[in-house]
Amino acid sequence: MPRTERYTVTEIKAVLQKEARRVEDCLSGCLRRDVPAGLLAAMEYSLAAGGKRVRPVLCLLSARACAPLGEDKERAILLFACALECIHTYSLIHDDLPAMDDDDFRRGKPSNHKQFGEATAILAGDALLTDAFVLMAQSADLGLKAECVLRAIALTAEAAGSAGMVGGQFLDMLYTDKKEADLADVAAMQAMKTGALLRLSCEAGATLSGAGPDRISALARYGAALGAAFQIADDILDVVGDPALLGKAVGGDAAARKATYPALLGLAASRAEAGRRAEEAAAALSAFADKDVSLLKGLADYVVSRAL
Amino acid sequence: MPRTERYTVTEIKAVLQKEARRVEDCLSGCLRRDVPAGLLAAMEYSLAAGGKRVRPVLCLLSARACAPLGEDKERAILLFACALECIHTYSLIHDDLPAMDDDDFRRGKPSNHKQFGEATAILAGDALLTDAFVLMAQSADLGLKAECVLRAIALTAEAAGSAGMVGGQFLDMLYTDKKEADLADVAAMQAMKTGALLRLSCEAGATLSGAGPDRISALARYGAALGAAFQIADDILDVVGDPALLGKAVGGDAAARKATYPALLGLAASRAEAGRRAEEAAAALSAFADKDVSLLKGLADYVVSRAL
Repeated sequence: MPRTERYTVTEIKAVLQKEARRVEDCLSGCLRRDVPAGLLAAMEYSLAAGGKRVRPVLCLLSARACAPLGEDKERAILLFACALECIHTYSLIHDDLPAMDDDDFRRGKPSNHKQFGEATAILAGDALLTDAFVLMAQSADLGLKAECVLRAIALTAEAAGSAGMVGGQFLDMLYTDKKEADLADVAAMQAMKTGALLRLSCEAGATLSGAGPDRISALARYGAALGAAFQIADDILDVVGDPALLGKAVGGDAAARKATYPALLGLAASRAEAGRRAEEAAAALSAFADKDVSLLKGLADYVVSRAL
Repeated sequence: MPRTERYTVTEIKAVLQKEARRVEDCLSGCLRRDVPAGLLAAMEYSLAAGGKRVRPVLCLLSARACAPLGEDKERAILLFACALECIHTYSLIHDDLPAMDDDDFRRGKPSNHKQFGEATAILAGDALLTDAFVLMAQSADLGLKAECVLRAIALTAEAAGSAGMVGGQFLDMLYTDKKEADLADVAAMQAMKTGALLRLSCEAGATLSGAGPDRISALARYGAALGAAFQIADDILDVVGDPALLGKAVGGDAAARKATYPALLGLAASRAEAGRRAEEAAAALSAFADKDVSLLKGLADYVVSRAL
């Protein structure tokens, strides 16, 4: 029977945790073993460091919202989804480097370069990024159409590359070090740095499921708005969050005088903006039957509710 | 009329230069423009820094050795070949970083991090690697079969990743810093660090041309042996080469006490080994008609002749 009532926060959390566990089961087996031991250890260290596995979970949920997948397609899309987590993990390793954000800790553990040294951290990041494309290509061997996988690979590389995530990290460094940024700059930077890969996670899931252009584009709009809401909420939590609950220190943005929504707009207006983007995410899914996307809609609420 | 006589060094050089120019014409147009200006400048700086464009040229010549390509396929494979040069260029940028080989110069110009700073150099490398996969995927839009492109993408990511180029760089750092390496270690390390991408360049060209498994595997063996010959010749030139002719300083390996063929075997035995690998490269092509591969055979001779 189609579900019409909204998901509660507890239900959403339970679903996210269950899907995250599936991703972690797959992730732990998907690194190749014929790799120099010290390099593999550094790759596994950061990949196993936890996190909510938001990107692969979004990829899976988006694919399922488009079509019932069946076991083979589920497994193939799960593999592609794990590749997205590899890309996210590489970006965290490189962002933490001394020449970049110079962070000694990540998720309560020493960051990769503190644990393994800078050279190994750079190479572990390079390897996770490159090996991610092996995993993506392999998803075609598990029964997805070559055309769909190729299209999803192109979208992923675009979202992660110079006009997406890497470009956003470049702008973030630029604004932190040298340049005054206004709200439009911050919005554009965040849309590239974190938004592009979150958007892509939804878009790739839809693409791999074999959905038509309308659904792919609706899920891309959902992912973009969700990503913006997520990032604003994250920046709010860096001001008002409880370090014990978050599992990380807060106040880093203000200390680094980073241009963020709370810094430029204040807390109240930032919360309103996060809420607006979460509504935009839900609205992007209006063409889907409610039963398919009630979970994705609930997720948009949940992302913002963390920062209220 | 089939060509039976061997190519002279002058002819080989002329062909390589002509193909390298085609690669450079394509390269200069293949970076996207909607990228933060400072990041794009750093990417273009290293991509335009020259070099012989060996990898894309090998990809093109290998494709042509398998089948007459026609204009559309040529253009598509040229685009894929340019992606291989982007990957090679990213690896040079990251290898030069202070935490890695700490090289201030590359091809007579300041290395990327000396010119743009370390953070930008790391990101320019990341972007070139990621954007390379956009280019590879785009080659399917120019008329190559999705299955062939997907297979070539998988092979490329394998050759460039943790069990290939990145893994080889990791071992190179390990042997230089800490661990005594013997000849088998050096051979295995070089096969990963430089051999894998040279081998892949030939294998990908054959794959994209639509060749059957026998020809793909023959060109992969050719590329692997050529890559080994090339690397040994390079190490010999680092001992006996003329800096003015090479366009770079020599003696760096000995100063860094790197384990190389000349260091472990001496010059004469290293030259013999380079010659043996060049012959192995030529022999791998025995199943092809001579007219198709006389150029590739000549190239194997030429690679070694530089170091005699």
